[in-house]
Amino acid sequence: MLRIISVNKDNYKIHLKELLKQRVEENIADIDETVERVILDIRKYGDKALLDYTYTFDKVVLNKVKVEEKEIQEAWDAVSKEFKDIIDAAKNNIWSYHEKQFQNSWIDYNEDIILGQKVTPIESIGMYVPGGKAAYPSTVLMNAIPAKIAGVQRLVMVTPPGKDGKVNPYILSAAKAVGVDEIYKAGGAQSIAALAYGTETIVPVNKIVGPGNIYVARAKKKVYGVVDIDMIAGPSEICILADETANPAFAAADLLSQAEHDEMASSILLTLSDGFAEKVKAAVNQQMVSLDRAQIAEQAIRNNSAIFIVEDMATAIEMVNDIAPEHLEIMTDNPFEMLPKIKNAGAIFLGHFSPEPLGDYFAGPNHTLPTSGTAKFSSPLGVEDFIKKSSVIYYSKAALGKVKNQIESFALHEGLDAHANSIKVRFLP
Amino acid sequence: MLRIISVNKDNYKIHLKELLKQRVEENIADIDETVERVILDIRKYGDKALLDYTYTFDKVVLNKVKVEEKEIQEAWDAVSKEFKDIIDAAKNNIWSYHEKQFQNSWIDYNEDIILGQKVTPIESIGMYVPGGKAAYPSTVLMNAIPAKIAGVQRLVMVTPPGKDGKVNPYILSAAKAVGVDEIYKAGGAQSIAALAYGTETIVPVNKIVGPGNIYVARAKKKVYGVVDIDMIAGPSEICILADETANPAFAAADLLSQAEHDEMASSILLTLSDGFAEKVKAAVNQQMVSLDRAQIAEQAIRNNSAIFIVEDMATAIEMVNDIAPEHLEIMTDNPFEMLPKIKNAGAIFLGHFSPEPLGDYFAGPNHTLPTSGTAKFSSPLGVEDFIKKSSVIYYSKAALGKVKNQIESFALHEGLDAHANSIKVRFLP
Repeated sequence: MLRIISVNKDNYKIHLKELLKQRVEENIADIDETVERVILDIRKYGDKALLDYTYTFDKVVLNKVKVEEKEIQEAWDAVSKEFKDIIDAAKNNIWSYHEKQFQNSWIDYNEDIILGQKVTPIESIGMYVPGGKAAYPSTVLMNAIPAKIAGVQRLVMVTPPGKDGKVNPYILSAAKAVGVDEIYKAGGAQSIAALAYGTETIVPVNKIVGPGNIYVARAKKKVYGVVDIDMIAGPSEICILADETANPAFAAADLLSQAEHDEMASSILLTLSDGFAEKVKAAVNQQMVSLDRAQIAEQAIRNNSAIFIVEDMATAIEMVNDIAPEHLEIMTDNPFEMLPKIKNAGAIFLGHFSPEPLGDYFAGPNHTLPTSGTAKFSSPLGVEDFIKKSSVIYYSKAALGKVKNQIESFALHEGLDAHANSIKVRFLP
Repeated sequence: MLRIISVNKDNYKIHLKELLKQRVEENIADIDETVERVILDIRKYGDKALLDYTYTFDKVVLNKVKVEEKEIQEAWDAVSKEFKDIIDAAKNNIWSYHEKQFQNSWIDYNEDIILGQKVTPIESIGMYVPGGKAAYPSTVLMNAIPAKIAGVQRLVMVTPPGKDGKVNPYILSAAKAVGVDEIYKAGGAQSIAALAYGTETIVPVNKIVGPGNIYVARAKKKVYGVVDIDMIAGPSEICILADETANPAFAAADLLSQAEHDEMASSILLTLSDGFAEKVKAAVNQQMVSLDRAQIAEQAIRNNSAIFIVEDMATAIEMVNDIAPEHLEIMTDNPFEMLPKIKNAGAIFLGHFSPEPLGDYFAGPNHTLPTSGTAKFSSPLGVEDFIKKSSVIYYSKAALGKVKNQIESFALHEGLDAHANSIKVRFLP
């Protein structure tokens, strides 16, 4: 079921393109039409439309969207101490990693010139947390903690309710643990529209973060500009680069951990060894049968996954940079020496005991990572996504006087005499 | 012509909303339709469509889009030494400011755990430079220099040709001065599509930056996701906060320097003093008549500009943060003491001798700034726009062993047993 394909530097691009073609979204006109209608309705009818769409899409009748303190406390009480301790340990690791991303304002003095960069937190953030089968408390931690470190004042969570009209208690507990300020029961494009434009209940936010299905992704793209967004997330991916020092069972387990996410997930192994490839394939088949989500994993493995036997290591590294995988595992003899050559990857897991789930929950780096090749230009979610900067400029009269002729001349070369005049007027006799 | 409006903390929001309503783009369905057709044609017909659209929109017949070395050299030779020296001085200041934004990779060692963040330049960047009346060599400097500092390998410039089929020599000279790698004669949505998807001549890039008209802005939004973009730029804005220590002629000149950009530009003055407001209004009327672009400035001043007489300084500062202006000038007795209170602004100019044109060309900070209130969530263009990050994670067997139970339990709480298995398989007897 898991394809094995032999490639060299001349033909790998064709094979990769064929395998990864599902990463290119093309037929989304219908989805976009629905998303646009939903957004217009939320802007026009506010809370009423939000409740109506929750009934239409989530099959739940609600009479209000706000999650009250009482419901949060009930969830907290219902969750085991063991789970709360794990949340706490994960939170500490995530906090400690992200704290290192904090950026200070800076200022630079040069005679009578002062230049600087002022860092300010974004005031309000909306955080989308999926519900249903993909209801992950880790999503709450990974989105909320960098926002808190940045100093965001108002952190709003939206998440679709379950069939019983309630929010998953693990999600509510994680939200309580990290100090989310407001929680609303709303999902899909309607919740994104509510965050961007506001309703009677929900005050609009400045930026929306968090993963979601295709409707959420398209709605985020649609409202981008009115608010900022973190990224447009696609299906999850792993790429493993392994030599014969790797354990085939480890590689197989890691390919499957990605594949169980959804049918569109992609798991790719790059190796130089025929024998290793065959062993991993056998281990995947053997491990898959006992998984709870074997059906999902099986489809992802069959349709979007492959083992590539690559001619040489240089080509394998070229392939990694071409794939620009969300998760990259390097299971080779000395994985650190590969690091300088890796240009495009969301997160890089080094060695035989750094599997991808370690990063999903616990190690500290963010699990919201660029997918579908966007690691060529995007970064993991981090503190910098929750701040913005302002330039600061001060010149004294003497300092401006020294450069006034140059600025006036530049302005006139651009045909802007009012710009030149703004300098000139300051030195009129 | 320049309105004077008295406001207090209870009614300023209504007045601001009325004034700034042109910042909200609504009726763009026709433009989006054109942009989508152009993008599809470029993807289908490549260079041929690019040349056809250059004829349709720019009224120029070209037989190829690439600007050859010879044309660049001719432009360089045609430009005065004086202008080249100014470019050089501006370049030095811009380089020196942006160098301070450079971010290093970091790594953190903790017993047998290694965590880090690897910084890599984005490999290829497309830079849009407007042509025609808004052909500004400063745009080239402001976009190219942070890319160069980041370490971008391939910096591609597109710019629409003039009626003579040539590119403005100041733009070409600025491009030569900063080391742009490839230059193409193409503008509008067609050039954005070519950068995102490629043609026979133009290899696609990873990210597109630079300002442009509404077609360029909408095309950038459309291709966002396939490539990254810097921001969606709107009309230019200035907000001046001035007390009676300010010179009315300076304030008027600065309001006009913004207004001459285009009819949609917005110039706003906030002051507590009736008398100062009247003096600025009179100075605007007096200075406007002698400007080359008086007609444009007059429209911007009449339609999108105002002087607000504000009840107290606290309200004035609230208004600044609500406007989130692209450019903010603080011309008060002690402008530095205002800085902690300013949350939302692209660039902050302090004091009586730091007019906005100083930042446009010369001081060093970037002139590509968030417009239309997006300073609430966006930053000036900078080196960080040309890099991306990868998380780096290494755990030894012993380190993973210590936390394996917690990770497995977390995974099972999320219903993902293949994730748990990826840990478990590493510790099988």
